[in-house]
Amino acid sequence: MDRKEKYERRQARKAEKERALEEARLEQERLQLKKDKKYMRQAITQAKKAAAIGEVPIGCVIVKDDEVVARGYNRRNADHNTLSHAETVAIRRASKKLGDWRLEGCTMYVTLEPCQMCSGALVQSRIDRVVIGCDNPKAGCAGSILNLLDMPQFNHRVEITRDVLKEECSAVLTGFFKELREKKGREETGNEGREEA
Amino acid sequence: MDRKEKYERRQARKAEKERALEEARLEQERLQLKKDKKYMRQAITQAKKAAAIGEVPIGCVIVKDDEVVARGYNRRNADHNTLSHAETVAIRRASKKLGDWRLEGCTMYVTLEPCQMCSGALVQSRIDRVVIGCDNPKAGCAGSILNLLDMPQFNHRVEITRDVLKEECSAVLTGFFKELREKKGREETGNEGREEA
Repeated sequence: MDRKEKYERRQARKAEKERALEEARLEQERLQLKKDKKYMRQAITQAKKAAAIGEVPIGCVIVKDDEVVARGYNRRNADHNTLSHAETVAIRRASKKLGDWRLEGCTMYVTLEPCQMCSGALVQSRIDRVVIGCDNPKAGCAGSILNLLDMPQFNHRVEITRDVLKEECSAVLTGFFKELREKKGREETGNEGREEA
Repeated sequence: MDRKEKYERRQARKAEKERALEEARLEQERLQLKKDKKYMRQAITQAKKAAAIGEVPIGCVIVKDDEVVARGYNRRNADHNTLSHAETVAIRRASKKLGDWRLEGCTMYVTLEPCQMCSGALVQSRIDRVVIGCDNPKAGCAGSILNLLDMPQFNHRVEITRDVLKEECSAVLTGFFKELREKKGREETGNEGREEA
Protein backbone atom coordinates (compact mmCIF):
# COMPACT_ATOMS: atom_id res chain seq x y z
CA MET A 1 0.00 0.00 0.00
CA ASP A 2 1.58 3.27 -1.10
CA ARG A 3 1.31 6.59 0.70
CA LYS A 4 -1.43 7.88 -1.58
CA GLU A 5 -3.59 4.80 -0.93
CA LYS A 6 -3.09 5.10 2.83
CA TYR A 7 -4.10 8.75 2.67
CA GLU A 8 -7.25 7.99 0.70
CA ARG A 9 -8.30 5.25 3.15
CA ARG A 10 -7.81 7.61 6.06
CA GLN A 11 -9.90 10.23 4.32
CA ALA A 12 -12.65 7.68 3.62
CA ARG A 13 -12.74 6.54 7.27
CA LYS A 14 -12.91 10.17 8.37
CA ALA A 15 -15.80 10.91 5.99
CA GLU A 16 -17.61 7.77 7.14
CA LYS A 17 -17.24 8.82 10.77
CA GLU A 18 -18.57 12.30 10.03
CA ARG A 19 -21.54 10.86 8.14
CA ALA A 20 -22.36 8.59 11.08
CA LEU A 21 -22.13 11.50 13.51
CA GLU A 22 -24.35 13.66 11.31
CA GLU A 23 -26.88 10.83 11.04
CA ALA A 24 -26.88 10.36 14.82
CA ARG A 25 -27.37 14.11 15.27
CA LEU A 26 -30.30 14.14 12.82
CA GLU A 27 -31.83 11.10 14.50
CA GLN A 28 -31.55 12.84 17.88
CA GLU A 29 -33.17 15.99 16.46
CA ARG A 30 -35.95 13.90 14.99
CA LEU A 31 -36.57 12.20 18.34
CA GLN A 32 -36.44 15.55 20.17
CA LEU A 33 -38.96 17.07 17.76
CA LYS A 34 -41.23 14.04 18.18
CA LYS A 35 -41.08 14.50 21.96
CA ASP A 36 -41.57 18.27 21.65
CA LYS A 37 -44.69 17.73 19.54
CA LYS A 38 -46.06 15.22 22.04
CA TYR A 39 -45.83 17.71 24.92
CA MET A 40 -46.99 20.66 22.79
CA ARG A 41 -50.15 18.66 22.04
CA GLN A 42 -50.71 18.50 25.81
CA ALA A 43 -50.19 22.26 26.03
CA ILE A 44 -52.84 22.70 23.32
CA THR A 45 -55.24 20.55 25.38
CA GLN A 46 -54.67 23.01 28.24
CA ALA A 47 -55.30 25.99 25.91
CA LYS A 48 -58.65 24.49 24.95
CA LYS A 49 -59.63 24.36 28.62
CA ALA A 50 -59.15 28.15 28.73
CA ALA A 51 -61.35 28.58 25.63
CA ALA A 52 -64.04 26.44 27.28
CA ILE A 53 -64.39 29.00 30.10
CA GLY A 54 -64.25 31.98 27.72
CA GLU A 55 -60.59 32.89 28.36
CA VAL A 56 -58.03 33.60 25.64
CA PRO A 57 -56.79 30.05 24.88
CA ILE A 58 -53.18 29.78 25.98
CA GLY A 59 -51.91 26.61 27.62
CA CYS A 60 -48.67 25.07 28.81
CA VAL A 61 -47.07 22.10 30.50
CA ILE A 62 -43.78 21.78 32.39
CA VAL A 63 -41.79 18.59 31.88
CA LYS A 64 -38.92 17.13 33.93
CA ASP A 65 -37.18 13.81 33.17
CA ASP A 66 -39.85 12.95 30.61
CA GLU A 67 -42.68 13.46 33.07
CA VAL A 68 -45.26 16.26 33.14
CA VAL A 69 -44.83 17.94 36.54
CA ALA A 70 -47.32 20.80 36.05
CA ARG A 71 -50.04 22.06 33.72
CA GLY A 72 -51.59 25.51 33.34
CA TYR A 73 -54.03 27.46 31.23
CA ASN A 74 -54.99 31.11 31.14
CA ARG A 75 -57.64 31.96 33.74
CA ARG A 76 -56.93 35.63 34.31
CA ASN A 77 -60.57 36.72 34.23
CA ALA A 78 -61.93 33.65 36.03
CA ASP A 79 -59.45 34.08 38.90
CA HIS A 80 -59.51 37.92 38.86
CA ASN A 81 -55.73 37.59 39.06
CA THR A 82 -52.96 39.18 37.00
CA LEU A 83 -50.77 36.18 37.91
CA SER A 84 -53.15 33.61 36.40
CA HIS A 85 -51.52 33.42 32.97
CA ALA A 86 -50.99 29.82 31.81
CA GLU A 87 -47.23 30.00 32.43
CA THR A 88 -47.36 31.51 35.93
CA VAL A 89 -50.02 28.99 36.99
CA ALA A 90 -47.79 26.12 35.81
CA ILE A 91 -44.63 27.63 37.37
CA ARG A 92 -46.42 27.91 40.73
CA ARG A 93 -47.61 24.31 40.52
CA ALA A 94 -44.22 22.96 39.41
CA SER A 95 -42.49 24.82 42.28
CA LYS A 96 -44.98 23.30 44.69
CA LYS A 97 -44.62 19.77 43.28
CA LEU A 98 -40.80 19.88 43.19
CA GLY A 99 -40.56 21.69 46.54
CA ASP A 100 -38.15 24.25 45.11
CA TRP A 101 -38.48 27.66 43.48
CA ARG A 102 -35.72 26.61 41.06
CA LEU A 103 -37.04 24.68 38.07
CA GLU A 104 -33.61 23.45 36.97
CA GLY A 105 -33.79 20.48 34.60
CA CYS A 106 -37.30 21.45 33.46
CA THR A 107 -38.72 22.40 30.05
CA MET A 108 -41.87 24.47 29.49
CA TYR A 109 -44.08 23.86 26.45
CA VAL A 110 -46.32 26.85 25.77
CA THR A 111 -48.71 27.47 22.88
CA LEU A 112 -48.01 31.24 22.57
CA GLU A 113 -44.80 33.25 23.06
CA PRO A 114 -44.73 34.43 26.70
CA CYS A 115 -45.39 38.06 27.73
CA GLN A 116 -42.97 40.22 29.75
CA MET A 117 -44.25 38.89 33.10
CA CYS A 118 -44.10 35.20 32.16
CA SER A 119 -40.73 35.55 30.39
CA GLY A 120 -39.43 37.25 33.53
CA ALA A 121 -40.86 34.47 35.72
CA LEU A 122 -39.18 31.84 33.51
CA VAL A 123 -35.77 33.51 33.95
CA GLN A 124 -36.39 33.83 37.71
CA SER A 125 -37.33 30.13 37.88
CA ARG A 126 -34.01 29.19 36.19
CA ILE A 127 -35.85 26.78 33.89
CA ASP A 128 -33.59 25.11 31.28
CA ARG A 129 -35.63 25.43 28.11
CA VAL A 130 -38.84 26.87 26.68
CA VAL A 131 -40.57 25.42 23.63
CA ILE A 132 -42.93 27.90 21.94
CA GLY A 133 -45.82 27.15 19.58
CA CYS A 134 -46.58 30.41 17.79
CA ASP A 135 -45.10 33.90 18.15
CA ASN A 136 -46.86 36.93 19.61
CA PRO A 137 -45.56 39.81 17.46
CA LYS A 138 -47.47 42.47 19.44
CA ALA A 139 -46.51 41.51 23.00
CA GLY A 140 -44.13 38.54 23.06
CA CYS A 141 -40.98 38.95 25.13
CA ALA A 142 -39.10 35.86 24.01
CA GLY A 143 -37.89 37.42 20.77
CA SER A 144 -40.72 39.56 19.33
CA ILE A 145 -40.67 42.85 21.30
CA LEU A 146 -37.50 41.91 23.14
CA ASN A 147 -35.95 38.67 24.38
CA LEU A 148 -35.94 38.50 28.18
CA LEU A 149 -35.14 34.76 28.05
CA ASP A 150 -31.73 35.38 26.56
CA MET A 151 -30.17 38.53 27.99
CA PRO A 152 -26.45 38.42 28.87
CA GLN A 153 -27.08 40.91 31.72
CA PHE A 154 -29.27 38.44 33.68
CA ASN A 155 -27.86 35.63 35.84
CA HIS A 156 -29.75 32.99 33.84
CA ARG A 157 -30.48 32.41 30.16
CA VAL A 158 -33.14 30.06 28.83
CA GLU A 159 -32.74 27.90 25.70
CA ILE A 160 -35.57 28.55 23.22
CA THR A 161 -37.13 26.31 20.55
CA ARG A 162 -39.74 28.00 18.34
CA ASP A 163 -42.49 27.01 15.89
CA VAL A 164 -43.37 23.57 17.32
CA LEU A 165 -46.91 22.79 16.05
CA LYS A 166 -47.08 26.47 15.11
CA GLU A 167 -50.18 26.17 12.89
CA GLU A 168 -52.17 24.15 15.45
CA CYS A 169 -51.30 26.57 18.26
CA SER A 170 -52.20 29.56 16.13
CA ALA A 171 -55.46 27.95 14.96
CA VAL A 172 -56.70 27.58 18.55
CA LEU A 173 -56.32 31.35 19.03
CA THR A 174 -57.74 32.45 15.67
CA GLY A 175 -60.68 30.05 16.10
CA PHE A 176 -61.43 31.53 19.53
CA PHE A 177 -61.37 35.15 18.34
CA LYS A 178 -63.40 34.31 15.21
CA GLU A 179 -66.09 32.70 17.37
CA LEU A 180 -66.02 35.69 19.73
CA ARG A 181 -66.57 38.11 16.83
CA GLU A 182 -69.38 35.97 15.41
CA LYS A 183 -71.05 35.73 18.82
CA LYS A 184 -70.76 39.50 19.24
CA GLY A 185 -72.19 39.95 15.73
CA ARG A 186 -75.15 37.68 16.53
CA GLU A 187 -75.80 39.51 19.79
CA GLU A 188 -75.73 42.87 18.04
CA THR A 189 -78.10 41.60 15.34
CA GLY A 190 -80.29 40.19 18.11
CA ASN A 191 -80.37 43.52 19.91
CA GLU A 192 -81.25 45.36 16.73
CA GLY A 193 -84.03 42.86 16.14
CA ARG A 194 -85.44 43.52 19.61
CA GLU A 195 -85.18 47.25 19.16
CA GLU A 196 -87.14 47.03 15.93
CA ALA A 197 -89.83 44.86 17.44
CA MET B 1 -52.09 105.91 34.45
CA ASP B 2 -49.90 105.83 31.38
CA ARG B 3 -49.33 102.89 29.10
CA LYS B 4 -46.01 102.00 30.70
CA GLU B 5 -47.56 101.86 34.16
CA LYS B 6 -50.42 99.68 32.91
CA TYR B 7 -47.95 97.33 31.28
CA GLU B 8 -45.89 97.03 34.47
CA ARG B 9 -48.96 96.30 36.59
CA ARG B 10 -50.03 93.59 34.15
CA GLN B 11 -46.57 92.07 34.29
CA ALA B 12 -46.59 92.20 38.11
CA ARG B 13 -49.99 90.45 38.26
CA LYS B 14 -48.73 87.81 35.83
CA ALA B 15 -45.57 87.20 37.89
CA GLU B 16 -47.66 86.99 41.08
CA LYS B 17 -49.93 84.40 39.50
CA GLU B 18 -46.96 82.33 38.32
CA ARG B 19 -45.41 82.50 41.77
CA ALA B 20 -48.66 81.30 43.37
CA LEU B 21 -48.92 78.42 40.87
CA GLU B 22 -45.30 77.43 41.51
CA GLU B 23 -45.90 77.53 45.27
CA ALA B 24 -49.01 75.37 44.91
CA ARG B 25 -47.05 72.92 42.80
CA LEU B 26 -44.24 72.74 45.35
CA GLU B 27 -46.77 72.33 48.18
CA GLN B 28 -48.41 69.47 46.28
CA GLU B 29 -45.03 67.84 45.68
CA ARG B 30 -44.21 68.21 49.38
CA LEU B 31 -47.52 66.59 50.36
CA GLN B 32 -47.01 63.80 47.82
CA LEU B 33 -43.50 63.11 49.13
CA LYS B 34 -44.82 63.06 52.69
CA LYS B 35 -47.44 60.51 51.65
CA ASP B 36 -44.90 58.51 49.66
CA LYS B 37 -42.59 58.34 52.67
CA LYS B 38 -45.47 57.21 54.89
CA TYR B 39 -46.27 54.25 52.65
CA MET B 40 -42.60 53.45 51.99
CA ARG B 41 -42.16 53.12 55.76
CA GLN B 42 -44.91 50.47 55.67
CA ALA B 43 -43.07 48.72 52.82
CA ILE B 44 -39.90 48.71 54.97
CA THR B 45 -41.90 47.09 57.79
CA GLN B 46 -42.80 44.33 55.32
CA ALA B 47 -39.15 43.96 54.27
CA LYS B 48 -38.19 43.40 57.91
CA LYS B 49 -40.71 40.56 58.11
CA ALA B 50 -38.76 38.84 55.30
CA ALA B 51 -35.47 39.33 57.18
CA ALA B 52 -37.06 37.81 60.29
CA ILE B 53 -37.59 34.51 58.44
CA GLY B 54 -34.14 34.60 56.83
CA GLU B 55 -35.28 35.83 53.41
CA VAL B 56 -33.67 38.70 51.47
CA PRO B 57 -35.55 41.69 52.95
CA ILE B 58 -37.70 43.21 50.24
CA GLY B 59 -41.18 44.51 51.05
CA CYS B 60 -44.02 46.37 49.40
CA VAL B 61 -47.53 47.72 49.83
CA ILE B 62 -50.20 48.56 47.26
CA VAL B 63 -52.31 51.67 47.90
CA LYS B 64 -55.61 52.72 46.35
CA ASP B 65 -57.53 55.89 47.31
CA ASP B 66 -55.22 56.46 50.28
CA GLU B 67 -55.84 53.00 51.64
CA VAL B 68 -53.44 50.04 51.77
CA VAL B 69 -55.17 47.26 49.82
CA ALA B 70 -52.35 44.68 49.93
CA ARG B 71 -48.99 43.98 51.54
CA GLY B 72 -46.21 41.57 50.57
CA TYR B 73 -42.70 40.53 51.49
CA ASN B 74 -40.22 38.19 49.89
CA ARG B 75 -40.79 34.58 50.89
CA ARG B 76 -39.34 32.75 47.91
CA ASN B 77 -37.47 30.14 49.95
CA ALA B 78 -40.15 29.76 52.64
CA ASP B 79 -42.86 29.13 50.02
CA HIS B 80 -40.59 27.18 47.61
CA ASN B 81 -42.16 29.40 44.95
CA THR B 82 -40.61 31.52 42.21
CA LEU B 83 -43.74 33.70 42.33
CA SER B 84 -43.32 34.61 46.02
CA HIS B 85 -41.40 37.85 45.49
CA ALA B 86 -42.76 40.73 47.59
CA GLU B 87 -44.36 42.40 44.56
CA THR B 88 -46.05 39.32 43.10
CA VAL B 89 -47.44 38.37 46.54
CA ALA B 90 -48.93 41.87 46.90
CA ILE B 91 -50.27 41.93 43.31
CA ARG B 92 -52.05 38.59 43.91
CA ARG B 93 -53.57 39.87 47.15
CA ALA B 94 -54.61 43.22 45.66
CA SER B 95 -56.24 41.44 42.69
CA LYS B 96 -58.13 39.23 45.13
CA LYS B 97 -59.22 42.12 47.35
CA LEU B 98 -60.34 44.33 44.46
CA GLY B 99 -61.90 41.40 42.54
CA ASP B 100 -60.12 42.40 39.33
CA TRP B 101 -56.81 41.52 37.68
CA ARG B 102 -56.54 45.20 36.69
CA LEU B 103 -54.98 47.34 39.41
CA GLU B 104 -55.97 50.64 37.81
CA GLY B 105 -55.86 53.56 40.24
CA CYS B 106 -53.29 51.78 42.45
CA THR B 107 -49.73 52.68 43.46
CA MET B 108 -47.10 50.17 44.58
CA TYR B 109 -44.45 51.15 47.13
CA VAL B 110 -41.48 48.77 47.01
CA THR B 111 -38.17 48.94 48.89
CA LEU B 112 -36.01 47.63 46.00
CA GLU B 113 -36.26 48.16 42.24
CA PRO B 114 -38.33 45.26 40.80
CA CYS B 115 -36.78 42.38 38.80
CA GLN B 116 -37.84 41.38 35.27
CA MET B 117 -40.70 39.16 36.52
CA CYS B 118 -42.17 41.74 38.92
CA SER B 119 -41.75 44.64 36.47
CA GLY B 120 -43.55 42.51 33.90
CA ALA B 121 -46.32 41.69 36.37
CA LEU B 122 -46.74 45.41 37.16
CA VAL B 123 -47.21 46.24 33.46
CA GLN B 124 -49.64 43.32 33.12
CA SER B 125 -51.60 44.55 36.15
CA ARG B 126 -51.97 48.02 34.54
CA ILE B 127 -51.03 49.65 37.85
CA ASP B 128 -50.77 53.47 37.69
CA ARG B 129 -47.54 54.16 39.52
CA VAL B 130 -44.60 52.50 41.25
CA VAL B 131 -42.59 54.20 44.00
CA ILE B 132 -39.12 52.66 44.44
CA GLY B 133 -36.83 52.89 47.49
CA CYS B 134 -33.37 51.94 46.25
CA ASP B 135 -32.11 50.81 42.86
CA ASN B 136 -30.88 47.31 41.98
CA PRO B 137 -28.03 47.99 39.53
CA LYS B 138 -27.35 44.26 38.90
CA ALA B 139 -30.88 43.02 38.22
CA GLY B 140 -33.42 45.86 38.33
CA CYS B 141 -35.77 46.13 35.35
CA ALA B 142 -37.33 49.51 36.11
CA GLY B 143 -34.39 51.50 34.77
CA SER B 144 -31.16 49.70 35.74
CA ILE B 145 -30.74 46.81 33.27
CA LEU B 146 -33.70 47.93 31.20
CA ASN B 147 -37.01 49.67 31.88
CA LEU B 148 -39.95 47.32 31.37
CA LEU B 149 -42.27 49.75 33.17
CA ASP B 150 -41.91 52.37 30.47
CA MET B 151 -41.68 50.75 27.05
CA PRO B 152 -43.61 52.38 24.20
CA GLN B 153 -44.10 48.93 22.60
CA PHE B 154 -46.29 47.68 25.48
CA ASN B 155 -49.98 48.52 25.87
CA HIS B 156 -49.39 50.05 29.32
CA ARG B 157 -46.72 52.29 30.84
CA VAL B 158 -46.22 52.80 34.57
CA GLU B 159 -45.25 56.12 36.17
CA ILE B 160 -42.10 55.75 38.29
CA THR B 161 -40.88 57.69 41.36
CA ARG B 162 -37.41 56.76 42.60
CA ASP B 163 -35.23 57.22 45.70
CA VAL B 164 -38.00 57.55 48.32
CA LEU B 165 -36.34 56.71 51.69
CA LYS B 166 -33.47 55.36 49.60
CA GLU B 167 -30.96 55.15 52.49
CA GLU B 168 -33.40 53.39 54.85
CA CYS B 169 -34.40 50.86 52.17
CA SER B 170 -30.77 50.20 51.29
CA ALA B 171 -29.76 49.89 54.96
CA VAL B 172 -32.27 47.05 55.52
CA LEU B 173 -30.58 45.06 52.75
CA THR B 174 -26.94 45.82 53.65
CA GLY B 175 -27.69 45.08 57.33
CA PHE B 176 -29.17 41.70 56.38
CA PHE B 177 -26.21 40.66 54.22
CA LYS B 178 -23.67 41.90 56.78
CA GLU B 179 -25.35 39.79 59.47
CA LEU B 180 -25.41 36.80 57.11
CA ARG B 181 -21.66 37.12 56.48
CA GLU B 182 -20.91 37.49 60.19
CA LYS B 183 -23.06 34.46 61.01
CA LYS B 184 -21.27 32.44 58.32
CA GLY B 185 -17.93 33.62 59.70
CA ARG B 186 -18.88 32.57 63.24
CA GLU B 187 -20.06 29.16 62.02
CA GLU B 188 -16.81 28.59 60.12
CA THR B 189 -14.74 29.59 63.15
CA GLY B 190 -16.90 27.27 65.27
CA ASN B 191 -16.33 24.36 62.89
CA GLU B 192 -12.59 24.90 62.90
CA GLY B 193 -12.64 24.86 66.70
CA ARG B 194 -14.46 21.52 66.69
CA GLU B 195 -12.11 20.04 64.13
CA GLU B 196 -9.13 21.04 66.24
CA ALA B 197 -10.58 19.51 69.41
